Amino acid sequence: MNSLKMNEQNNKYREQDKNALYSNNDDKISMDRLATFCKRKSIFFQSSYIYGGLSGFYDYGPIGTKMLDKLISLWKNYFFFMNQKIGINMHEMSCADIMPENVFIASQHTKRFNDLVAVCAKNHVQRADHLIEQELQNKGINITNLSLEGKSKEELFSIIKENNIKCPICGSKIKEIRAQNLMFGLYVGTENKKAYLRPETAQSAFVNFKLIYEANRKKLPFAISIIGKAYRNEISPRKLLLRMREFNQAEIQIFFNPSDFDNFINFDEIKDYKLNILLADDRTQNTINFKKVKCRDLINRFEKFYLYYLAKIQSFYIDVLKIDSERFRFYEMNEKEKAFYNIYHCDIQLKLNTNSWTEVAGLHYRGDHDLSGHDKLSKESFKIKDEKTNNYFIPHVLELSFGLDRNLFALIDLAYYYDKDRDNVVLRLNKHLSAYNVAVFPLLTNKTELVEKARQIYLNLIKLGLYNVFFDIKGSIGRRYARQDEIGTPYCITVDFDTLKDDTVTVRYRDSKKQERIKLNYLNDWLNKEFKLHFSWI
Amino acid sequence: MNSLKMNEQNNKYREQDKNALYSNNDDKISMDRLATFCKRKSIFFQSSYIYGGLSGFYDYGPIGTKMLDKLISLWKNYFFFMNQKIGINMHEMSCADIMPENVFIASQHTKRFNDLVAVCAKNHVQRADHLIEQELQNKGINITNLSLEGKSKEELFSIIKENNIKCPICGSKIKEIRAQNLMFGLYVGTENKKAYLRPETAQSAFVNFKLIYEANRKKLPFAISIIGKAYRNEISPRKLLLRMREFNQAEIQIFFNPSDFDNFINFDEIKDYKLNILLADDRTQNTINFKKVKCRDLINRFEKFYLYYLAKIQSFYIDVLKIDSERFRFYEMNEKEKAFYNIYHCDIQLKLNTNSWTEVAGLHYRGDHDLSGHDKLSKESFKIKDEKTNNYFIPHVLELSFGLDRNLFALIDLAYYYDKDRDNVVLRLNKHLSAYNVAVFPLLTNKTELVEKARQIYLNLIKLGLYNVFFDIKGSIGRRYARQDEIGTPYCITVDFDTLKDDTVTVRYRDSKKQERIKLNYLNDWLNKEFKLHFSWI
Repeated sequence: MNSLKMNEQNNKYREQDKNALYSNNDDKISMDRLATFCKRKSIFFQSSYIYGGLSGFYDYGPIGTKMLDKLISLWKNYFFFMNQKIGINMHEMSCADIMPENVFIASQHTKRFNDLVAVCAKNHVQRADHLIEQELQNKGINITNLSLEGKSKEELFSIIKENNIKCPICGSKIKEIRAQNLMFGLYVGTENKKAYLRPETAQSAFVNFKLIYEANRKKLPFAISIIGKAYRNEISPRKLLLRMREFNQAEIQIFFNPSDFDNFINFDEIKDYKLNILLADDRTQNTINFKKVKCRDLINRFEKFYLYYLAKIQSFYIDVLKIDSERFRFYEMNEKEKAFYNIYHCDIQLKLNTNSWTEVAGLHYRGDHDLSGHDKLSKESFKIKDEKTNNYFIPHVLELSFGLDRNLFALIDLAYYYDKDRDNVVLRLNKHLSAYNVAVFPLLTNKTELVEKARQIYLNLIKLGLYNVFFDIKGSIGRRYARQDEIGTPYCITVDFDTLKDDTVTVRYRDSKKQERIKLNYLNDWLNKEFKLHFSWI
Repeated sequence: MNSLKMNEQNNKYREQDKNALYSNNDDKISMDRLATFCKRKSIFFQSSYIYGGLSGFYDYGPIGTKMLDKLISLWKNYFFFMNQKIGINMHEMSCADIMPENVFIASQHTKRFNDLVAVCAKNHVQRADHLIEQELQNKGINITNLSLEGKSKEELFSIIKENNIKCPICGSKIKEIRAQNLMFGLYVGTENKKAYLRPETAQSAFVNFKLIYEANRKKLPFAISIIGKAYRNEISPRKLLLRMREFNQAEIQIFFNPSDFDNFINFDEIKDYKLNILLADDRTQNTINFKKVKCRDLINRFEKFYLYYLAKIQSFYIDVLKIDSERFRFYEMNEKEKAFYNIYHCDIQLKLNTNSWTEVAGLHYRGDHDLSGHDKLSKESFKIKDEKTNNYFIPHVLELSFGLDRNLFALIDLAYYYDKDRDNVVLRLNKHLSAYNVAVFPLLTNKTELVEKARQIYLNLIKLGLYNVFFDIKGSIGRRYARQDEIGTPYCITVDFDTLKDDTVTVRYRDSKKQERIKLNYLNDWLNKEFKLHFSWI
């Protein structure tokens, strides 16, 4: 593609972005349009796109990579601090993605980590639930009340037969529904040992439990946190970052003695805190998105420690990430829906513009499922002596599991705003999540003394290693502001002729467009103040 | 294993560490002993060890994970700043590890990324060069002068025949030498599309070149940096983190027009800088580790830009990481040895206590090998118009490639010091690389007011999100200092009864054991000063 065509295409993309919003009531943007925007701004795009890519694999560009870093950093600061404060030591690990087969036999992933697929007479394979949803919709049937999660092979097959659903690829009959395992298998070494790419980071924490228990001086509770990749060979990856085959997880596994964990939690602190929650029972009423329920009114349903973590997670989304409270809810899974290893299972859902209520995280009470499995199959014992009763027990696990890509996608979706006055997108991200903390410009780009002064300020800032700073000397000052608005940079600093005289610069705010003058020698302190984390409410 | 046995085992390990050093002249420690130490201190250990693990896969424990983070941060700050300063924009990306087959057909990895293996009559497979080295050593032959790198199948086979080398597993004859590909292959989706785990992060940069070139406003040079995992199905992984099957890379790919790249480099700045380099020609003289050669005296051998980056890399190791100059060298690969894609190829080697000269990084001038390959095979054109000559050309690539695990291993190896006076290991790491910036203790652990005061200082510090802080209330103060010495914490802060009166604390320095008293309200400023990065010499 030559450079002229490229400009035309970029202009076309910009036009599409604009039309998308005008035609959809400002707060509705389609998934496709968001994809176009994210590719144009180097946030994310299909991996290996020059070869047509593989479904479900994405690369983060320079802007997205920085946003992902910032999200990780904010998440880590909040949840590590929150846990350390109540005396739960946080042990972060960085572990191999490839793990031997026995790990997943013990965890039952080889047997149970399956999706049900529909296979047609000509052997086309599709996820059975997606096929049913799609074909019923094509037939004009309202599927709002349809819930396929947790349905058996037989149940799905009868829905297919009843509705005469055929293979959409070739039109032939669906001959069977079968379970297909979702792990990527591979072979290691010249002996071809069977191994898998881990389908969740959690197993890396479980197999290392005993080592870290010892590093924690044999005291419970403690937590292992892993921020890393997981891999699932999804039957039908879709919706951009919402269902990927290779994805980034941020997880905390808390190991505890179920007989005393509630002692570590100050339930009084949160008893009147209202959770946004859609309980499994309330889901029969389709008009309710969620109810606001005090933690104390849920103690017959969940353990106190579980409610404590629900409250802290909600506070993270509402108070730290600044998500509109009406767009946040917990979604309780019922017996059939919840993952095979869970005792309690609430998803965290955000209401997106592109995708309505969307799962971005989960709080999973896994009981002793995982450690018991490894206790049975491995060489290590996972039994711990309870000092009070002298009985041996296997610690329980509470898992905080966050899909980093999904959360990032959600934050971009919610921040995307077309400002008619500016005729430009403003990505109204939380300033702690913007790719760049600040941009530095000379007012005029053809004046060497301004360019040099701005460049010096920029170099002095990046040298600190604390901030991401964008330096821009191309185009009018308005165009440069607009480019920063699009990627959500909260502050722009402009160097003009007054700067050369009195060492002051203009700070321009992204959302208000307000400008103010500050002293250059105050710049570091000002940035320090602006980007300091405040978790005073924890 | 019960808790009594565990303590015995830990005591045994400690005893082994001590003996290792006493019996080996203080600066020699064996690979096995370092492995024991690193497992005991939760730095790194075999992954999935409870199932016997898989060779070549390691997990980082809480201490190692923090060290790795710090190394990445220091590396990134230095090299990003260094490049930005000379006007090369740094674009960091985070990309999928799984890539479609075409990527590696274009890069020639499917065809040429092989090791030669010896196969015996009973089909045992071993890396041919390792087999020869090992068997010749077993026969008492001195292999110091033996260089097998770059030898052909036929050459290796005749060495095997000449020396009558048999399979060490079953004693049978070696029947053939064949090439074995080192990539992990897998299949994606219900269509079973062939894909690979990337064997180097670099290909993720190359396939995205055109997108980032546009994001960089079609200006050369610019750089893509990727910090992430790469995977190689090594025939015989060994030596802990020095040859892994899954490993962490930090890479920078600089894309440039070969006709003008030297203009971006200030050669005068480094012309008298002396490089520690072992040139290919000088390697016939076995007594020389390296020569110290001025950059200006190498301009007939390398391009100026290549020398500039050699100088900056050496400065990173010597001035930033503080590696003893006598333990750093560049090792120039000759025509036969260098990787198939390289025009110039110098390894960065550090002289370790466990492993003598060890490759930890490389500076690779890859020419247009990669972009040409993708230009031919993909849908995208990688040709760029030279504005001066109006000719189209394919940009060249200079690759800075760092093995993060190898570097971390090297830094631990070099920092490990058994202090006879303390009767304890002191990990004399660069303070910017230590897992914890600082530890906080109450002097006495049974005095509530001291414990509470110390705890408050600790929580206030971690709340900032800037420092890793260890809080310890177990054991005597001497024992707590010793534990921090072992993991390299540069400063310990102790709260005593004076603290309650005058708000001062004791700071104790790791290496000198010197103690001084500082005001609590000066603590943040003091830490800020101690951990500020200084790259004034760049």
